[in-house]
Amino acid sequence: MRIDGRHYRTIWTEDDGRTVMTFDQRLLPHELRLVALKSLEDAAQAIETMLVRGAPLIGATAAYGVCLALRDDPSDEGIERAFERLIRTRPTAVNLRWALERMRSALRNQPHGGRLERAYAEAARICDEDVAICKAIGDHGLALIRAAAQRKGGGPVNVLTHCNAGWLATIDWGTATAPIYRAQEEGIDVHVWVDETRPRNQGAALTAFELGQQGIAHTVIADNVGGHLMQHGMVDLCIVGTDRTTRRGDVCNKIGTYLKALAAADNGVPFYVALPSTTIDWTIEDGLREVPIEQRDGSELTRVSGRTADGRIETVEITPAGSPAGNWAFDVTPARYVTGLVTERGVCPATAEGLAAVFPEQAES
Amino acid sequence: MRIDGRHYRTIWTEDDGRTVMTFDQRLLPHELRLVALKSLEDAAQAIETMLVRGAPLIGATAAYGVCLALRDDPSDEGIERAFERLIRTRPTAVNLRWALERMRSALRNQPHGGRLERAYAEAARICDEDVAICKAIGDHGLALIRAAAQRKGGGPVNVLTHCNAGWLATIDWGTATAPIYRAQEEGIDVHVWVDETRPRNQGAALTAFELGQQGIAHTVIADNVGGHLMQHGMVDLCIVGTDRTTRRGDVCNKIGTYLKALAAADNGVPFYVALPSTTIDWTIEDGLREVPIEQRDGSELTRVSGRTADGRIETVEITPAGSPAGNWAFDVTPARYVTGLVTERGVCPATAEGLAAVFPEQAES
Repeated sequence: MRIDGRHYRTIWTEDDGRTVMTFDQRLLPHELRLVALKSLEDAAQAIETMLVRGAPLIGATAAYGVCLALRDDPSDEGIERAFERLIRTRPTAVNLRWALERMRSALRNQPHGGRLERAYAEAARICDEDVAICKAIGDHGLALIRAAAQRKGGGPVNVLTHCNAGWLATIDWGTATAPIYRAQEEGIDVHVWVDETRPRNQGAALTAFELGQQGIAHTVIADNVGGHLMQHGMVDLCIVGTDRTTRRGDVCNKIGTYLKALAAADNGVPFYVALPSTTIDWTIEDGLREVPIEQRDGSELTRVSGRTADGRIETVEITPAGSPAGNWAFDVTPARYVTGLVTERGVCPATAEGLAAVFPEQAES
Repeated sequence: MRIDGRHYRTIWTEDDGRTVMTFDQRLLPHELRLVALKSLEDAAQAIETMLVRGAPLIGATAAYGVCLALRDDPSDEGIERAFERLIRTRPTAVNLRWALERMRSALRNQPHGGRLERAYAEAARICDEDVAICKAIGDHGLALIRAAAQRKGGGPVNVLTHCNAGWLATIDWGTATAPIYRAQEEGIDVHVWVDETRPRNQGAALTAFELGQQGIAHTVIADNVGGHLMQHGMVDLCIVGTDRTTRRGDVCNKIGTYLKALAAADNGVPFYVALPSTTIDWTIEDGLREVPIEQRDGSELTRVSGRTADGRIETVEITPAGSPAGNWAFDVTPARYVTGLVTERGVCPATAEGLAAVFPEQAES
């Protein structure tokens, strides 16, 4: 997708084929700062500090982290060390483990001499596949937006989204945003309600930024507002992403997603979750009991960064000194509140049977 | 209640009996700045700009606004002019109209000479009655917290609240907080989850501040978090305030209240609304259709003010230039999601019958 009219992916290699490039998403929308990742530790810290974020991009960054580690140590121990360092950077998204295991499988039992080349090729493949998957999600989700437009019979289709499941969270296209970008290509009139997404403001900062750069009509709202809009017929459908979905369709996503799903159910608004199948954790059933929910530092809530009137980036404290803050980063939306899962192979019910029908090879494993 | 160990009300008259004092709530928790209101326009602007806020305090400030207007013009026209100026300061809270009509009734048909004295006496009575009402709400709500403590059989009772329905929103005690302060007096172990309450952060700024000043254990959370906490048994009951409740028990309160009520219903958590009966609008039934929802400027969402590391108050912009923001200030929670209404006369079901049983003289009028 575009920033300042130029096409970018979220992660790529420099002309040397070795240096990994990305941009610091913590500075968006205020500044586009390219960052070179040159070592395993660079990649691990980029994930930990949320310089990069979003389940698919976390997976891709981890894959490149393995490549960077191999430059120093292409041994089996080197691969294991990279795996162990990277797997503990973030606990919730399942793509991280998926990407690391895929890298390990591709490299194990290979001669040390060819491992580096092979690693970079595999990481690039992970990225290219993610782009194709997101595009396919866009095609399947497009049908849902088109149907909403037809039901409505005029005026923009109002889509509500939470957090950033946009191209900035993936390699390109995004998951929840891919249907929106496809709808724009098809000339469908779309308007997006962008949940601010406290405490890190990924909606206000990232989703609003990428939609604006793509010329998509949108309005930023507080996370508190979606229910009111749905009560008054101002939301035609919700599309969100996910960090991990269980085999029966429970959806773990950015904290607050569950509240919007409840409001959608209460008001008969379709609630869709867009996801690459790499986000499905086939090993678990019950999202509420089995997905580890990351707790992050309270300062993410108590301190807010932004642009001052004279253009500086400043951080301000909004709570009284001495008031502690709790910061759970994700919640789980039970499958019964999910209208459908939009995968790269099509839309399916958020049930064990629904997922198994679309991914039989996974469900049986 | 206390600030820096000293007892305050939110509004009072100076020793001259005429100058009205309050403090600028927009600067809390960073600064306690006392403000003198000396004219009708001072009072009207204090309400409009949210220097004061909270339905009961808005009503009291409007009552004193009438007093200030009479100092210049004690005629019938002067009273009407004050009424008209003040009634249009905020559209949602019903106490504003209630207080203004009460002032008008008290002053009409009175000799001009005695009006000023009478007006100040009536405004003081409105304040004193509000304190007594909040205290009574506290007594009735205390029973709910005590029952939760007994059900739990150990550990703190976790109360979730949204926005600031604390003493800062009233004259003293607060509505939703009164039961909490009473529980503290009774030695019950209470911990409060304080919703940040975007976009104006009344929870993070005001509720956290007043709980901290009173020594009540609390944790500030993003508005997105409550559902997750309720799913995991970490909330024993919710208590919120209201700006207007209909005769059948629909509750209009700060935007986002509805989402918490949905989560409470989904997880079997009792959801109580604390309210002085002045907040009940006996003229309407259907909150969703009949309560006007104030839309405020989008800049309340896109700009955040706080304290920099070196102690300055600074405002930062958090959204991309060119991304519009929508800012609905309230939503309506349908009565079916409200476990009970905690009034100054006791707790009743959120139904027309429930309210009529407690306030028969109003319900029949």
